[in-house]
Amino acid sequence: MITIVGERLNSTRRAVAAAIAERNADFVRKEAVAQAEAGADFLDVNAAACLAQEIDALRWMIDVVQEAVATPLCIDSPSAEAIAAGLEAAHGEVLVNSITAERERAEQILPLVRDRGARVVGLTMSESGMPSTAAQRRDLAREIVELAAKHGIPADHVYIDALVRPVSTESAQGRGFLEGVRAIRDAGTGAHVICGLSNVSFGLPRRRLLNRTFLAMAMAMGLDAAIVDPLDQWLMATMRAGCALLEMDEFCVEYLAAHRERALGDD
Amino acid sequence: MITIVGERLNSTRRAVAAAIAERNADFVRKEAVAQAEAGADFLDVNAAACLAQEIDALRWMIDVVQEAVATPLCIDSPSAEAIAAGLEAAHGEVLVNSITAERERAEQILPLVRDRGARVVGLTMSESGMPSTAAQRRDLAREIVELAAKHGIPADHVYIDALVRPVSTESAQGRGFLEGVRAIRDAGTGAHVICGLSNVSFGLPRRRLLNRTFLAMAMAMGLDAAIVDPLDQWLMATMRAGCALLEMDEFCVEYLAAHRERALGDD
Repeated sequence: MITIVGERLNSTRRAVAAAIAERNADFVRKEAVAQAEAGADFLDVNAAACLAQEIDALRWMIDVVQEAVATPLCIDSPSAEAIAAGLEAAHGEVLVNSITAERERAEQILPLVRDRGARVVGLTMSESGMPSTAAQRRDLAREIVELAAKHGIPADHVYIDALVRPVSTESAQGRGFLEGVRAIRDAGTGAHVICGLSNVSFGLPRRRLLNRTFLAMAMAMGLDAAIVDPLDQWLMATMRAGCALLEMDEFCVEYLAAHRERALGDD
Repeated sequence: MITIVGERLNSTRRAVAAAIAERNADFVRKEAVAQAEAGADFLDVNAAACLAQEIDALRWMIDVVQEAVATPLCIDSPSAEAIAAGLEAAHGEVLVNSITAERERAEQILPLVRDRGARVVGLTMSESGMPSTAAQRRDLAREIVELAAKHGIPADHVYIDALVRPVSTESAQGRGFLEGVRAIRDAGTGAHVICGLSNVSFGLPRRRLLNRTFLAMAMAMGLDAAIVDPLDQWLMATMRAGCALLEMDEFCVEYLAAHRERALGDD
């Protein structure tokens, strides 16, 4: 199966920001339990929209989530301090979201990741911006894996995010991203390939249909992890079908179990 | 957009065999109209299950379909005589389904295809059987394109079907087929890549979910035509989403039109 990071506990969602402001533990708990039950392998926690209060808010959210579920966390912040605080509060296995190929930030965060034995998402962007071509994405992926290795972090703990852009504004970006995934996989670095894929459908109707179709495509090209809403039942059904089709689910055991639990829909 | 061949008028379906036996023109007409309205670019007509009566049955079916719709036909038969009769009866553009790399049969059918200016499906199998690896599929595709060229048929009129097998019995066949599609596309012969993809899900529950997920994957790898049931609304929605994502639908015009017609579902 691919690794699913549940994206719902993100302060850019208005309901989450409100729950944080009110310290509404019940809301956070319910979101955590629902995502864990739907099959999330990690739960993203992001309080970055709280700005100066981010670290307090993140600590609070982590405590609430960890009381509710045993699912590992994905500490999501642009701030190295918040990531450090999050790593301190989080138990067990943990994923850090994210670094880029930008040296200064990577040099701050990678030692924290290494000391904690954590995993880390690496976005394929650098001081010079975001790439358009598959080869640029592959080269940035290599740079990030090398940066991590320099800090003693094995490639298997690195999750490269090739950064998809909306096809509504740049129609070639869907294909560009998919070829990037393939190129990163073909480079054989040993790193995982992850994606927060909902960006691809921005500005178009029926975004869930586009998102799950793109998930299937990206899995065929080599994606083995995704940052998604695990409560999107059709997306999770597509993911399970994709694993059965790509030999990522031996004897289709998980697929058949999901079918028995009526989690694959009935059209 | 990719080319959709509507598969429903096939005598292996019991209802179709019965309609042929009773010369139930109304049934055939309704199936033809429904598939054309759902967006089929070709309508497959197959009467092979009628055995000795195949040619009469095929001629009758072709006449009924052509009276009902203007959609081009796909003449589907293992018999060279039936294909010849079908090509005589069919008007306008036409697709022949199918040849393989087996010389004897190809030498019978390709002259008919050329004389008619028709298109032809070429299955990647030969006297020595069906391939398992991507490289074998690519090599057979090249052989078929060369065979066609020898008979004066341009690569653009050839549709290579890389033959998918059920993942329920051979779990590596999904990946094997997808890599085959990619290898055929990368070989740059100029031929199209087509697939009758429902075979992949044989023996598993929720076949429609598997079929449409596999269609998205195959499109990412280079498929540009498919033999499917166009009345499967979610499959057609996936196809339209796939085209929007892969720059096969300029400015997402077809996708947005399908949305306005409420053809993309509403989850």
